[in-house]
Amino acid sequence: MADTIFAKILRGELPCHRVYEDAWVLAFLDINPVAFGHTLVIPKEPAATLDRLSEEASAAIGRVLPRLCRAVMQATGTQEYNVLQNNGPLAHQAVFHVHFHIIPKPDATSGLGVGWPAGVLTSEEATELLSKLHAALG
Amino acid sequence: MADTIFAKILRGELPCHRVYEDAWVLAFLDINPVAFGHTLVIPKEPAATLDRLSEEASAAIGRVLPRLCRAVMQATGTQEYNVLQNNGPLAHQAVFHVHFHIIPKPDATSGLGVGWPAGVLTSEEATELLSKLHAALG
Repeated sequence: MADTIFAKILRGELPCHRVYEDAWVLAFLDINPVAFGHTLVIPKEPAATLDRLSEEASAAIGRVLPRLCRAVMQATGTQEYNVLQNNGPLAHQAVFHVHFHIIPKPDATSGLGVGWPAGVLTSEEATELLSKLHAALG
Repeated sequence: MADTIFAKILRGELPCHRVYEDAWVLAFLDINPVAFGHTLVIPKEPAATLDRLSEEASAAIGRVLPRLCRAVMQATGTQEYNVLQNNGPLAHQAVFHVHFHIIPKPDATSGLGVGWPAGVLTSEEATELLSKLHAALG
């Protein structure tokens, strides 16, 4: 795995605006926020994408997310927000160390923009897809 | 908390295309997929938004996300994807029971659209925000 700016932050070689830290997780402010309060939550374990992260590290992030979301909402005075985790360059990932974004949504026009080209799942598609998913899950 | 279609699915009153289930978590196919393979991961515990979910339930979702992401990628033959969790109507939440979307990103034009109006965090803003966040975290 390539070295990343987040690995350098974890090693103390780059500074960050530290929000929270425990044995598994570091949270800090995004210096290019999509909205005021934009916070990044990363595992200390190195993994480029979520599918490569251990269950323990991912559970540790899950455990702290509600508390961090409450803190971000309280500190910014917002009520709504998005939690986003991107995997791959096409999917808007720029740093190849897993990170969850907590992004306040203060109003309709600022914060994360969500494009939602929803379709319809046919029952034939569902049957085929479920068969493959259940095989993949073992 | 209002009754939701996801609560009805959890009670077996509405059907779903079940992908995975354990004591804490249910995953099923979104019937209006943003991309083929779009999967929803929900806690059995009722909570409208992530900030209101228990740490245990949120950790259980975190624990299973890597495995579910691997299965969705394998079943759809895609490499890239977004994990999105929306809180509030402005933030694109439509069902008020916590849910994480796993959305494959097969190419640049399909899948989740991400609008990213990034700004710059000044050191004065960071100092003020960190002070409030640390107070909120106790």
